[in-house]
Amino acid sequence: MQRYRLRLEYDGCGFCGWQRQAEGASVQGTLEAALASFTPEAPSVTGAGRTDAGVHASGQVAHLDLERFWLPERLLAALNAHLRPRRVAVRDVGLAPTGFHARFSALRRSYVFRIMNRRAPPALERGLVWHVPAPLDAERMHVAAQALIGRHDFTSFRSSECQALSAVKTLDLLHVRRRGELIEVRATARSFLHHQVRNIVGTLKLVGEMKMAIDFPLAAMAARDRAAAGPTAPPHGLVLERVDYPDGWPRL
Amino acid sequence: MQRYRLRLEYDGCGFCGWQRQAEGASVQGTLEAALASFTPEAPSVTGAGRTDAGVHASGQVAHLDLERFWLPERLLAALNAHLRPRRVAVRDVGLAPTGFHARFSALRRSYVFRIMNRRAPPALERGLVWHVPAPLDAERMHVAAQALIGRHDFTSFRSSECQALSAVKTLDLLHVRRRGELIEVRATARSFLHHQVRNIVGTLKLVGEMKMAIDFPLAAMAARDRAAAGPTAPPHGLVLERVDYPDGWPRL
Repeated sequence: MQRYRLRLEYDGCGFCGWQRQAEGASVQGTLEAALASFTPEAPSVTGAGRTDAGVHASGQVAHLDLERFWLPERLLAALNAHLRPRRVAVRDVGLAPTGFHARFSALRRSYVFRIMNRRAPPALERGLVWHVPAPLDAERMHVAAQALIGRHDFTSFRSSECQALSAVKTLDLLHVRRRGELIEVRATARSFLHHQVRNIVGTLKLVGEMKMAIDFPLAAMAARDRAAAGPTAPPHGLVLERVDYPDGWPRL
Repeated sequence: MQRYRLRLEYDGCGFCGWQRQAEGASVQGTLEAALASFTPEAPSVTGAGRTDAGVHASGQVAHLDLERFWLPERLLAALNAHLRPRRVAVRDVGLAPTGFHARFSALRRSYVFRIMNRRAPPALERGLVWHVPAPLDAERMHVAAQALIGRHDFTSFRSSECQALSAVKTLDLLHVRRRGELIEVRATARSFLHHQVRNIVGTLKLVGEMKMAIDFPLAAMAARDRAAAGPTAPPHGLVLERVDYPDGWPRL
């Protein structure tokens, strides 16, 4: 039995999320259906992160096991051929080292949340950004964000459906940067709570539009109460960009 | 009568191009229908460039005339409200100076053509890039491109349907740059022939994949024969980014 690891890109619009569900097309189910169409083994696919409905990925990682040996490049070509015309693409396939698990071996996950901050709605990047027409002060958001860096109880930024045993997480990076009309919020951590990035972005937005003071995210976190923080930002602004592993894969 | 100028973004997919036609949704027709839904004047809209079916814009410019005076920001809001959910957005509205004409006053037009150069098909940017799986040498393309700069007879890069009186044009800039998996070809000129940018990109691609020598674009141009150059690159990689005018508008 050989384990393979995949690096994936997908457009979350039109998917009910990563995870296979009774109804609706999932990314996991789409990959498994593509596999079943060219191998009788019909392996299941395990992802590094269960992205929600509407959330995109440019660097999701997954693994699967196959009895028959496949050259990684052949597996990549077969998968992409059978994924058309679905908006899922396999960017890399590699042989996984012994003991590799897409979810449990992951060292770090990196997300970017993109806000289109201009009056005109997005026409070219519709579905890939959150449209916020009122001006946001990205520097103010960045300064406010730094209070959340480190090991904290993130109860205030956790969805009521979150299944994690503990709300204590270590946030390694939270960067807010303006690039023209676009504001990018980057977040890196070993793992995140359900809706954590989107709830942080919804909270920082209130700071950026001057509705809340610069210490609002810190005060919201200290309250350990979801109601103390801002609303959840919409899923379509969020992209899982990268998952890192101990052996340095993926090398980009 | 007041003339207004608009800066527009649109997704060319699903449009038969800029120009109003007997069948199919055009960008021009979509704008005129939006205007007719909130003003009885029903003005026609004149664009700086007639982008083809599938070609996008992030900075197309157009003008229109109205008897009733509108504050530019009110006109912008009304237009965007009535353009939903079409993939056309008005980014700016301004009062046009006396004698302004979106097409005839334009000093320079700037296009970018984006190639996604990787094995995996694009999932997130599908419809916004040309997918070329085989590796391209962007530096080689850039060097080859420089032979086309300046005033030349571009007959070899002109569509058979082109209506321009002369094929002599002055190409001010033709830049090829790799940014990771993306190759961007930027072209600037006072005006372009029909399919000129797409035919140049199709020609440079043959140089990038080593099928043709580095002097191929120059030799193709010298032949003054469409059959001497490469094939036409697909429309969905092309974006009209910017149109410049003598008074310095738009200021970005």
